[in-house]
Parts: sequence; C-alpha cells; structure tokens
Amino acid sequence: MTKIRAGVYGGSGYAGLDLVEILSRHPGIDLVFATSKTYQGDPVPNTDLCFVAPDTAALDCVDVIFLALPHRASAAVAKRGIDAGVKVVDLSADLRLDSPEAYQAYYDSPHPHPELLPAPYGLPEINRAQLAGVDVVATPGCYPTTVLLGMYPLLRHNALSADAPVIVDAKSGVTGAGRKPSLTTHFAEVYSNLIPYKTGRSHRHIGELEQEAQKLSPQMGPIIFCPHLLPVDRGLMASIYVTLNDSFASSQAQDLFAEAYANEPLVDLLHNDKQATLKHAVKTNRCAISLTPVLDSYLHITSVTDNLRKGAASQAVQNMNLMFGIDETTGLL
Amino acid sequence: MTKIRAGVYGGSGYAGLDLVEILSRHPGIDLVFATSKTYQGDPVPNTDLCFVAPDTAALDCVDVIFLALPHRASAAVAKRGIDAGVKVVDLSADLRLDSPEAYQAYYDSPHPHPELLPAPYGLPEINRAQLAGVDVVATPGCYPTTVLLGMYPLLRHNALSADAPVIVDAKSGVTGAGRKPSLTTHFAEVYSNLIPYKTGRSHRHIGELEQEAQKLSPQMGPIIFCPHLLPVDRGLMASIYVTLNDSFASSQAQDLFAEAYANEPLVDLLHNDKQATLKHAVKTNRCAISLTPVLDSYLHITSVTDNLRKGAASQAVQNMNLMFGIDETTGLL
Amino acid sequence: MTKIRAGVYGGSGYAGLDLVEILSRHPGIDLVFATSKTYQGDPVPNTDLCFVAPDTAALDCVDVIFLALPHRASAAVAKRGIDAGVKVVDLSADLRLDSPEAYQAYYDSPHPHPELLPAPYGLPEINRAQLAGVDVVATPGCYPTTVLLGMYPLLRHNALSADAPVIVDAKSGVTGAGRKPSLTTHFAEVYSNLIPYKTGRSHRHIGELEQEAQKLSPQMGPIIFCPHLLPVDRGLMASIYVTLNDSFASSQAQDLFAEAYANEPLVDLLHNDKQATLKHAVKTNRCAISLTPVLDSYLHITSVTDNLRKGAASQAVQNMNLMFGIDETTGLL
Amino acid sequence: MTKIRAGVYGGSGYAGLDLVEILSRHPGIDLVFATSKTYQGDPVPNTDLCFVAPDTAALDCVDVIFLALPHRASAAVAKRGIDAGVKVVDLSADLRLDSPEAYQAYYDSPHPHPELLPAPYGLPEINRAQLAGVDVVATPGCYPTTVLLGMYPLLRHNALSADAPVIVDAKSGVTGAGRKPSLTTHFAEVYSNLIPYKTGRSHRHIGELEQEAQKLSPQMGPIIFCPHLLPVDRGLMASIYVTLNDSFASSQAQDLFAEAYANEPLVDLLHNDKQATLKHAVKTNRCAISLTPVLDSYLHITSVTDNLRKGAASQAVQNMNLMFGIDETTGLL
Repeated sequence: MTKIRAGVYGGSGYAGLDLVEILSRHPGIDLVFATSKTYQGDPVPNTDLCFVAPDTAALDCVDVIFLALPHRASAAVAKRGIDAGVKVVDLSADLRLDSPEAYQAYYDSPHPHPELLPAPYGLPEINRAQLAGVDVVATPGCYPTTVLLGMYPLLRHNALSADAPVIVDAKSGVTGAGRKPSLTTHFAEVYSNLIPYKTGRSHRHIGELEQEAQKLSPQMGPIIFCPHLLPVDRGLMASIYVTLNDSFASSQAQDLFAEAYANEPLVDLLHNDKQATLKHAVKTNRCAISLTPVLDSYLHITSVTDNLRKGAASQAVQNMNLMFGIDETTGLL
Repeated sequence: MTKIRAGVYGGSGYAGLDLVEILSRHPGIDLVFATSKTYQGDPVPNTDLCFVAPDTAALDCVDVIFLALPHRASAAVAKRGIDAGVKVVDLSADLRLDSPEAYQAYYDSPHPHPELLPAPYGLPEINRAQLAGVDVVATPGCYPTTVLLGMYPLLRHNALSADAPVIVDAKSGVTGAGRKPSLTTHFAEVYSNLIPYKTGRSHRHIGELEQEAQKLSPQMGPIIFCPHLLPVDRGLMASIYVTLNDSFASSQAQDLFAEAYANEPLVDLLHNDKQATLKHAVKTNRCAISLTPVLDSYLHITSVTDNLRKGAASQAVQNMNLMFGIDETTGLL
Repeated sequence: MTKIRAGVYGGSGYAGLDLVEILSRHPGIDLVFATSKTYQGDPVPNTDLCFVAPDTAALDCVDVIFLALPHRASAAVAKRGIDAGVKVVDLSADLRLDSPEAYQAYYDSPHPHPELLPAPYGLPEINRAQLAGVDVVATPGCYPTTVLLGMYPLLRHNALSADAPVIVDAKSGVTGAGRKPSLTTHFAEVYSNLIPYKTGRSHRHIGELEQEAQKLSPQMGPIIFCPHLLPVDRGLMASIYVTLNDSFASSQAQDLFAEAYANEPLVDLLHNDKQATLKHAVKTNRCAISLTPVLDSYLHITSVTDNLRKGAASQAVQNMNLMFGIDETTGLL
Repeated sequence: MTKIRAGVYGGSGYAGLDLVEILSRHPGIDLVFATSKTYQGDPVPNTDLCFVAPDTAALDCVDVIFLALPHRASAAVAKRGIDAGVKVVDLSADLRLDSPEAYQAYYDSPHPHPELLPAPYGLPEINRAQLAGVDVVATPGCYPTTVLLGMYPLLRHNALSADAPVIVDAKSGVTGAGRKPSLTTHFAEVYSNLIPYKTGRSHRHIGELEQEAQKLSPQMGPIIFCPHLLPVDRGLMASIYVTLNDSFASSQAQDLFAEAYANEPLVDLLHNDKQATLKHAVKTNRCAISLTPVLDSYLHITSVTDNLRKGAASQAVQNMNLMFGIDETTGLL
C-alpha cells in the first residue's frame, strides 16, 4: 500500500506537536513536512524532519495538509491547499461555522475566504456520513467536541426541555490556551488557581456548539457556558446539566447513551456507578462520559477529552482516515 | 482586657492547624491547649504548646472550645463542654442540622446527642443576630458557606424561579478531604486529575444547604450539586447557575449583591467585569463573589472561599467573636 | 511465532500498572494474569483480564513472571516460580544484592531465600552479556539505574578521583513512594513542597548502587546521596557531581559518553548545549543524559528516567527480552 | 512616632508585590507610591494606592525607596534617589558586586553608575554591622542569600577544605524567573517538569556568592552551582555539599550552626533529625536550615527560603529597618 503523504502547518504549537506525534506512528502516513515560523530549522520531535518555514513547505509533494494554525491565518492556507488539489484538515475555527455572517458575529472580522463555507464539520461520531471521501474538513473545537459528544444521544432523541437552558461548566488544561507566552499562561498565575473566563455566552465556541446542537435538536434551550482554566497541562472536562422534557426520564439515560455509543471505539461510556475523571481521557484519543440522573427530570453529564487529542489532533487524524477511506481508527488505538 | 481562654480539639487536622494559627495571632485569645490523638507530644505549630490527648485537655481552664473533630465524635465533646459551662464552637456537622431526623437522613446514623439540636447556624453574614452572645454555634460546612453566600441576596429577595433547579458545580482543594491518608488523597491519584464525586444530590452538605436556603426562600427549586476534587491544596469555588423569576432581571443582580454586602468586611463582591478566581480567596478569611448575567433570566455566580478559612477555621473564629461580644472581625483582617 | 505467556504479580501498584500496559502492547507477549490483593476482581487496565489473588494465579500456564512486589514478599514468589520452571523478572530489591549479608545490612532483616543470591543485575546497558538467556534477573532500583547510567562511561574508564566523594542529588516523583496511602504521599503534604529524605548514606539503594559501581571502578570514592520527593507524579532526575582524576579532563566527557552510548537505543545523550529535563524521559522507556564540564576536574551529569519505566517496568521488559533471546527493545520503542 | 515614608519602584513584579504587602502591614511605614510601567492606573493590592508611572513617582515625598527593578534599570533610579537625599534599598543586582569590573564580567555590560560601587551587601545575619544607619544597601539575590546562610557558620570558622569544590544543587520556584511572560515560564512547559539551567559556573549569582563567601573564608574551593526550575510558584532550596578540612568533623556541625544562629529570629536551624523542606520557609520571612553529617569529612546542608521573601522582599525590609535604626524584625514576625 502506498502511504498518504502529509504535511502539518503549525507543527510547533501544542496541538501541532501532538498531531506530528500521532502521524509519526500512523502506519498509513508518510510525514513530509511540518512548518513553524518560530522554530524553523529545529528538529521536529518524534521524526527525522526539521521545521520549515510555511512558505517553503512542499505543498506539491503531499496528499493532505493539516492546519494547526490560528484562525484567520488558516483559511488562506486551506485555500491554497484546495487550489493545489490537496486534501485539507483544518484544526482552526475558520471552517467550522456554516456562514460568513456567523463567522463575523463570533470572530469579529470578515471571513477571509467565504467561498470555503460551509465545510463538513468533522465530528465523526455525529457526522460520519458527511466526511467519507471529502476534500476538506473542519475539525471542531475542543469544547464543542466534548460537549456535543456528551449531549448527542439526548439531542438526536429530542429529549431536552425547550424551556430550560443547558448549563455547561467546563474546565480546561492550559495547553488549550496555546503556546504563545502571555501573563494568562504564566506558571505563577495559573498554579494553585482556578480561573473562569469568557463566561455567560461570550466564548467563541458557543457559535459552532449551538449551530451543531440545533441541527440535531432545533427546539433546545440556550446554552450557558462557563469555561475555567485548570492548573493542569492537558485535559478538558465538560460538566453538562440538562433538563429533560416530559417524554423522557433521567433513569432512561444510561441505556440511551449505551445504545448510541455501543459501536464507537473512541467514546467510553462509563458504568453508571463511576464518574469520568480527567485521567480517563488524558493522553488517550477517546472521550469518556459518565451520567448522573438527578430526580426524574434532570441529568448531569460529565464528558472528558484530552483537549489536544480528541479535542484537536487525534480527531483531525480520525477525520483524515475517513477522507481517505481507510479504517477510521487507524493510528488511534 | 482579660483574654478569652480557648482550647482546640482536633488541632492537627488541616482545619485545626489553620484554627490554631489564627487563634495564635488573635489579640483577644489565650490558647490554652490543642488536642491530637495522632500527634500528642509534638509541638503545636505557631505556639509554644504541645498537642495533648483529648482526655487530658484542661476543659476547666478555658472559656471556649473549638471542635475540629469528625462528625459523631464532635457531639460528645460539645456536650461535655456545655455541661462544663464552656462555650462551644463546633466545626463538625453534628450541630448543623435542625433535627435528629435530618441528621439520620444525611449521616446514616442516629444523632449522638439529639438534645443539642437545633443549634444556631454560624454564618454571620446571614444569621448574625442569632449568634450574639450564645453558648453554642454550629459552624457551617465549606460548600454550604460558599454557596449560601453566593445566593443570599437572591434568596432573601425571593428572586429565584420556583420551577427550575439551582445548579451548583463546585471544585475543592484536597485539604477539604481531611488529613487522614487514603487512596483518594494520594498525590499520584489527584495530580493532573479532576474528579467529580458524590454527584447529583448525594453529598451530605445538601442537607444543611437546602435547610438554610429554604428558610430564606421556601419556594426555591431543588439544588443539583456536583463537587469536584481539584488538584490544589486549598480553595473552594462554587459555580452557581440560577434561573430568576419574572420579578427580577439578571441586570439587577450586581446592584442587589452590592447592597447586600456593602458593609460586610469578609465578603468581596468583584466589579462586574471581573471573575472571582481561587486566588482571590485562598489564604484569606474572605469570600469573593462575581456575577455574570446571562440573557434576562439567568445568572451565573462564582463564589470562592478558602475551604479551611471562611469555609471552616476563620468562620469559627468569626462566630466566637460574636459569641463573646467582641468585634466580629477581630483577628481576621 | 508462539507468544511468551506472562504473569504479573503486584499488578495494581504503580510499577505493576505500567508493566501491564507495556506488556499489553508487546507483540511477543500473551499476558495471562495479573495479581492484586487489594483489587482482585477489578478489571486490569489495558487488558481484558481481572485481577486475581496471588494464590490463585495460574503459575503453570506462564513462561515468565514479573514480580512488582514489596521486598521480602517478592523472594518467596521468585522461589516458587523458579521451582516451577518459570523465568523470573524481579522488580523488588530481594535479588539485587549479591550476598545475604549485604541484604541484612541494608534491609535490616535476614534474606528470605539466601539460596537465590547472587542473581544477575538487570541493567542491560552495563550487564547485557550476563542477561542473555538466563532464568532469573534482578531489575535494579530507579535511583541506581539512573545514577549508574549517568556514571557508567566514567566508571569503566576509571576516570573518577579516588579521593573525592561522588555527590548524587536526586529528585523523584511521588509514584516512587508506592501506591499505599500514607501521610508522606498525601496530596496536601507533597503539593508545593520539596522534601529531602533518607539523606547522607541512609537510603537503601546505596547498597546496590555502590556494589555495582565498585565492580566497574573499585577505587572510586564514597557516594553521598540525597533523594528528594518532588511534587510531580513521575520522573526521576539524578544530579551527579564528580571529581575526575588526573588522567582525564572534563572536556573529554562528551566524547566518552557519546562513544559509550552510540548504539544504545534506550539512552539519549543530549547535545552538549542542552540540559536533560524531566520531560525528556517521562512516559518514555529511555534514560536522558546531559553533561556540564566544570573547570578541568569536575563534571556535572544530569541523568533522567521515568521511575516507573526505565526505572522499573520497561527495564524489566528489556530484561525479559534478553532472557528469551528476542530483540532487546521489542515493545519498548 | 512619625512613620517612614516609602516608595516602591517595580511594584507589580512578583518581588514588588510581596514588598508592597509586607510594607502595607509594617507598623512604621507609610507607603506613598508604587510604580509600574505595565499596570499604571491599576489598584495596588493590599493598599488604597494605584500604580503610577516611574517618572511621576513623588520622590520628594518619601524617606526611602525600594527598587524591585531589572538590573541596569535599577542603578539609574538608585542614583536619582541618592541625589535627592532619599535612602535606597536596591533589590536588583546593580549594587551587589564590589567593582565595575566584576559587574562587567558577570552582567556583560559596563556598570551604568560605577560611582555607586561598592555598596553594603544587605545580608544582616552576616553583615549587620555594616548596615546600621547607612543610606544605600544592595539586597542580595535569592540564591546567594540561601547559600550564604547555609554556609556562614562554616565559612567564618574556615572549616572548609581548600582542595574540594562546594557543590550547590539549587531548586527554585517559578516566580524567581520574574513575571514577564516567556516560553520558559509558560505553565505547560514547567508543569510536571524539572529543568536545570545555567549549570556549572555560568549563573550570574556565582559572582556575588563567591565574592561574599571568600571575604569570610578566602581559601575555600570553587563553587559548582546548578539551579533548577521547580514546578511550584515560590520557594528556594539550596542543597549544599561541602568537604570539611582536617580541623573539623562533621559531627561538630550541628553545634556550630546552633551557636551561630542562636539569636537570629529569621533563621531556623532544625533539630538534627529533621530535614528542611520548602514548606518550612514558603510564605515566611525566614531561612530554614538542616544538616546531615556524612562520614567524618562531609556535610550536606539544606537551606531553604521563600525566594520572594528572605530571598528578596522581606530581606529588603529587614535592611531598611537597620538603615533607619528601628528593630530589625519590625513587620517581619
């Protein structure tokens, strides 16, 4: 079998580094280049390559590119890849929203390449059918991945009350804030601390989260979202509190989730006497989920991923596997 | 002025150690003894004392005793203190619930001394009038303190919807689990982890929390509570998500809280563009609160304490100050 | 190729869990059982097995057993394995010292099975020739592994001054202290702390360390050893300060080490402008080493391993590979 | 008593913030201003002030200024203060070395104000007599403070072998690296890691350390120094390994240190069966020291400070107390 030749843009960020590590062990991949503006010339960990400048990357020598770039920067490279006939797996936010208007609303600037929208939303457990063989995929954000997987069985059964909000209290490790130094990520500011940020409905991930959730369950209530910066390096926990509608009792939830995820190798539904913890997911490519029924009408869902894996890099590879028609979990188990 | 002579039972646990430290710097206190079964004979940090066995503590030489003991053990010592004419500040759960039946329900065993119930609930910002000059006070748990202070202005104005639950997603440092070694508190199990526990409505603190909240606002909905073990040593954050009733808009909340806490030296209401973080409260004797209005009907409250201070030891001292009629914040600012 | 059937005693401790994880991915191994007194009946992570009681382990169904047991307990199981014709990889201290007298001196009790001594010391980079095809191997302790690899090129060239001590300032993650709960490993005691322990020459690992070092370089000076408990879960750094004798200048060290480790896949000698950090080794099966020449006569060596991998579990597997004549790094790269 | 009016330059760095906190509780101090380029206009924690720009600070309204500024920037402000008749406590490196030549050698640039050298070296336990009533003091670096206090009793008795180096393996919390964001201090780079840096004799603090040590004991051997970045926010441990000369046995050390520090309220010599840990010193203004004699000729000293307190801010206040002739520990116990 000839290998798929891949390039990684933004290979020296935290998601990029995990991506390179996963690709370096993927049996079907030949990693051709990894770019980095900051570290060009330095060795790429887990490979024999050195980082190259984005402009000098051999776009014509690869079959697929992964874009672990900041939003706004990513769209232009995606465009270039598409024009060159190369498949594109974007890990930025640039292709996640369906319309330029939504992008403008959540990212406060015009979309750099509106002609690229909409792109398939790469959350295979939900959208698998739309990803097979396609040329471009938008890999979801870490928060939306974790929250959507935690709610999916309820959403597709329209089990949520239309009159109540969905509360998402989320906690993320510091790699989620990127590798660029800032006071926010200074060790002494984060250590021993817990910091809520972009509370209410102000975090940008609300956009794609509600977009995708409402496709599955248009009548659901608004999402109230509070992320927290957790004093650990990686891992993301979404604590989701939902109100069920009259058609559905909390005691049915465990079975509903078990059925939905029975054949999903990258989702672990925990037994109903266990709680998902950060350690269930960190350094794995899976999402771990546990459920607590509360009274008849309420359900507390804990959904956990590694923000750099199922929340970014490994999900990008899962999408690539689907785009090339190879087994979805290749290189991920 | 003659000093108040104080004794501490359970002085070598984490709350006990903080209590001793605070009392050792309190200008009106003469610390006479601190007991410890495990460490008797060892020096008591921040003092010239050595830990003594509980049985040999000089109960007749003190005016007040603090009980930083496990529940069930505490009630018997409280009884002894009362019989000896000594004031009692209990930090355990034994005196917090109003009836033996409630105690049986939440603590799975008969109350050791039902004749001690009910005792005044020592949350001065709410119950100050009931604490002045009394002989016995039950100091609240760390979670109820933090949650009740975060909700108090809403509760006393009956601003909460009766038809919606109150969601409390809480996170506590490991000292909250006590000093007794167990796998739960083993460094390698907690480090880099985040662990939900006693989810739903199964945590014992639900009992006193709903008891006190409903006294203020009987029609409020049920509390859904999920504590998490946070990989830090101290600090407690309660993220409280409430639905307001029609009489009240989320935009009014900041003013309501500002009014309620204007003269409270141990509650810090943050400006409405700031979020309370663990660092706002850790190693202080205060509760820090921030508010995020969400749409018209929802409010997200972040309430933070040091679980060993305002959540235990310093609140006990605040209660003692009230019991002896001295300035409430003596030794605490 | 038929697989080697393996059993793990003590599979639920931290080293045991890493061992099971490595064996579960080893292409030549069929893991038959893992024992645990505490967790019998529970699933064994990364496998389809459940932990069994040590007494019910199917010793007659395996070709090799790994003993991740406390010292003194381990020797008896080693004896049983040998008597049953099964190869034994011991991770405890029971087989590391060459004589019962040395064991008595360092472990304060008679050796449970003196007839098992001496056993080959399983540090392949040093003793490879003595490990091929043998039936029993003593896997070294985490500190001796890390220190010996950091000194080996100097020892075999007799480059150390006979008149000066070797200073070893070591730092270990908390998993090195085992999984059994104690105040020493309580999260709140270790967090934000750094704790020297068993200072001077009082740590038991001094015994095997000097035994093996002196075999290579009998005239070396005494080792002064200070381990510290580091507030991380895993990783071990040995900072080794040596005085060179007149035959050797510090500027020659980099070449000497480069030559010694040129063909060692599990030792990373860093370029001379880099320092080995904990992250170079944690979650890998390798030892990372960096050198700092100081003046002409002194050398500062930083040697780093994952205490649970090259310091325990992966080195045990490396030894097993040698014992069965398969490629030494199978399952480890 | 009229209060001493003080100003702090560089009040928003980590040492500056601790300095402001200590001064705000100092009974003899009236804090008049704190400067910050980055945070001007923001409230100064623990005070009623707002940060002002350095140029607008009211130098003519204060009796003393503290300079918590970067080296090179500090000397110019020191000069200005001296010219204005204000006492100066410098926390930077600018006044620590006795000659411009030494400054050039260690700081790679000409001294900005050579006329200020030499200045009294502000380590009161060693140099107290030279600090009383003076107008300018150079407060030592965190590493030199901790190491010099750990060696002082030996140095003044010339107890060290002239033929052996002094090994200092040091570990510092991240605040020691300052508050300016960089990849070095990024949470995800430091977390779970341990990083040696400026090994050998390359760290700038070697200059003042050997300068002061050799004043006490000119014949001592060279210092080999390796600092490590520790994954905690504050605290500094120096592990010092010395070889004693023939006049002195390691068993005499405990008495020697006990005598030297008997009347030093800010040095804690631990009992000889205890080891100094980071927790002995963090958030205190003291240095904690423990000793381990090793064989007859070697001594292992553990010396611990809070790098922001006795290693910076509280030592600066201790110096100021001496400069103004008030009790040396005022505001520090």
